[in-house]
Amino acid sequence: MAAVTERAHAAGLDAADPLAGFRDEFVLGERIYMDGNSLGRLPRRVEERVAALVQEWGERLVTGWHEWIELPARLGDLLAREIVGAQPGEVLVCDSVTVNLYKLAAAALDGRPGVIVTAVDEFPTDRYVLQGLGEVRLLDPDPAADDVAAACAPGDVALVCLSHVNYRSGALADLAGITEAAHDAGALMLWDVCHSAGVVPIDLSGVDLAVGCTYKYLNAGPGAPAFLYMREGLQLELRSPIQGWFGQREQFAMGPAYDPEPGIVRFLAGTPPIVALAAVEPAVELVAEAGVAALREKSVALTAYAIELHDAWLAPLGFELGTPRDAARRGSHVSLRHPEGWRICRALIERADVIPDFRAPDSVRFGLPPLYTRFVDVWDAFDRLRRLVEDEVYLELDPAPGRVT
Amino acid sequence: MAAVTERAHAAGLDAADPLAGFRDEFVLGERIYMDGNSLGRLPRRVEERVAALVQEWGERLVTGWHEWIELPARLGDLLAREIVGAQPGEVLVCDSVTVNLYKLAAAALDGRPGVIVTAVDEFPTDRYVLQGLGEVRLLDPDPAADDVAAACAPGDVALVCLSHVNYRSGALADLAGITEAAHDAGALMLWDVCHSAGVVPIDLSGVDLAVGCTYKYLNAGPGAPAFLYMREGLQLELRSPIQGWFGQREQFAMGPAYDPEPGIVRFLAGTPPIVALAAVEPAVELVAEAGVAALREKSVALTAYAIELHDAWLAPLGFELGTPRDAARRGSHVSLRHPEGWRICRALIERADVIPDFRAPDSVRFGLPPLYTRFVDVWDAFDRLRRLVEDEVYLELDPAPGRVT
Repeated sequence: MAAVTERAHAAGLDAADPLAGFRDEFVLGERIYMDGNSLGRLPRRVEERVAALVQEWGERLVTGWHEWIELPARLGDLLAREIVGAQPGEVLVCDSVTVNLYKLAAAALDGRPGVIVTAVDEFPTDRYVLQGLGEVRLLDPDPAADDVAAACAPGDVALVCLSHVNYRSGALADLAGITEAAHDAGALMLWDVCHSAGVVPIDLSGVDLAVGCTYKYLNAGPGAPAFLYMREGLQLELRSPIQGWFGQREQFAMGPAYDPEPGIVRFLAGTPPIVALAAVEPAVELVAEAGVAALREKSVALTAYAIELHDAWLAPLGFELGTPRDAARRGSHVSLRHPEGWRICRALIERADVIPDFRAPDSVRFGLPPLYTRFVDVWDAFDRLRRLVEDEVYLELDPAPGRVT
Repeated sequence: MAAVTERAHAAGLDAADPLAGFRDEFVLGERIYMDGNSLGRLPRRVEERVAALVQEWGERLVTGWHEWIELPARLGDLLAREIVGAQPGEVLVCDSVTVNLYKLAAAALDGRPGVIVTAVDEFPTDRYVLQGLGEVRLLDPDPAADDVAAACAPGDVALVCLSHVNYRSGALADLAGITEAAHDAGALMLWDVCHSAGVVPIDLSGVDLAVGCTYKYLNAGPGAPAFLYMREGLQLELRSPIQGWFGQREQFAMGPAYDPEPGIVRFLAGTPPIVALAAVEPAVELVAEAGVAALREKSVALTAYAIELHDAWLAPLGFELGTPRDAARRGSHVSLRHPEGWRICRALIERADVIPDFRAPDSVRFGLPPLYTRFVDVWDAFDRLRRLVEDEVYLELDPAPGRVT
């Protein structure tokens, strides 16, 4: 049997991978794609569906709206069942993560005094939106349930908002434990599941609010519509601050006063982008065919393998693992920290045909989406990485930090 | 020379139409499409651009964001120059009309006491959003500048919000006069140009705020991203209530505090839907090639012709013109009011292959987009309409009012 650092070992893991065939569902190229994960690959069926939807617009014209208008709720039910562990009528696909977070957090805070608790390294747009809505109390990175409990005196906190998987470190939060700590303090709990949706099993039962995106592990395309979740029991109490006509009961009666739908649909705002929305359905169906449980199993194996190779090859070169070693505490990307992370990331892209991404100040993120990532991809990427650092190729690049999306 | 009620007259007008060739730019079908105008037709070049963008996603993956991230501002500049009479850096293409109206109105009202003035028949989502933001004072339909002045005691009003072209009646507002009346009262002026963008020359110089859509006369597809305008002089003062990361200065520094861009970009919120956004560019370029001035000239001729046929054929059958007779006071759709408007509209769609739309309580709207509508289309549609009413075909349909999008 091949040693873990031999390519044959990776090839053996691929040969035994029951999900290996899903790779054929995607448009592939020569480069090793390990963006971590700002944008999933293009599924062939999404390309087809987008083209079909555009044709449908051309042929059906305005009458297409009779079906299109159902898409936000219909796709929400699909996500509820297959991806986030919610009930029908608890999820909508609409707007961006930012706008959805704003709608839900503003609704939660309306008439509910108290501070907002989040983490100091929460994803930027989440922190910025929350800063605009009230006083924010910042926890240290990757808080445990006890940390949340310690930060929440009963009655003192209105809302706790955290990411299920941290965008930088890849740490996976204790969703159930933290939700319970928030509830014990009388606060509502809002989860951002952008970096877990489609790759980590999620169970939102008992959770109050959640937002997520469809362009990472769900592969619905750049800036594809986001989603929001609200548990059924809150839907009559909370109101969207954006009183749009798509949330109006009897929308086309166009009556004089805003009278929101008595369900999740009240959290729609304006006319949704149908071409972008239509792409979500085949993308999510593809993930559902593989199954999130099976994807999680492969994802854990991929990240574990990356950590093994890091320990063998990269730690001696000055890298530090930024992601938890405990598989139960990490998502599907691995962050490798290095003082020269920026240049190393650029060198991988420009000189080695490997695409990871960079998150300030020092993290090179390797996203390992199990639907289309092979173990040999991990081996090849890390082999190129170690040689590029050993040979100091990265020193040839401009050291100035810039933007890596 | 043929009488106005003879089809040959319409054919003669088409033969002399300098814009007639633009019809070939669109995907056409057998039906006469006069939706008024919830959704423009599909331009062939948009179909091509969408397919190209999806391929670009598949090939460039996350690196495509280096260009995509500029789209909201770049397309905004295109709209500013070609469609809405604004300066570079004053327009963004993003989000929905509803979300944009919310962002701008909330920003305008922050720290600016006073009521909001709008019209009783303003488009529903506009009224609902404004109701959520403050006390709303309602003007009678289609207010003149004097009506606005009379409703605004100085210092009493914070914001005036009206549609440039009324979605139901098709009435075209006195944009400059009403803006001046609002300013005289110390209020900011926000125009909704959804029903005028691309078909009526717009000059936003001096206007404070505006929103509009790209899916009507700009033909960018169902639910295509909307746009917002803010005059340069307000951009440092006003702040978006939705403090999203796309409005953050040095977005990818991901710093601790929200620090908005010192320009229009601060009114971006979350990650924009790139596939939908990309469709806007060729769609707007097509309108720009025809030119809004030429489009307006043909639009006025089309609506005048429709009114002539209405007077000759339809008024005797119980129709009433819901649109101003003065060409300077109407947009590009004509509303015909009839007590049986709902059933007549359905009968046109189901029995006569003509697609208008219906707006409660009694308006059948005929949108006449000059880029692809022929004079013979008007003749054919109204000829079928009069015969359908004369023969009482509409009485065969269910009288229950339902939804017509």
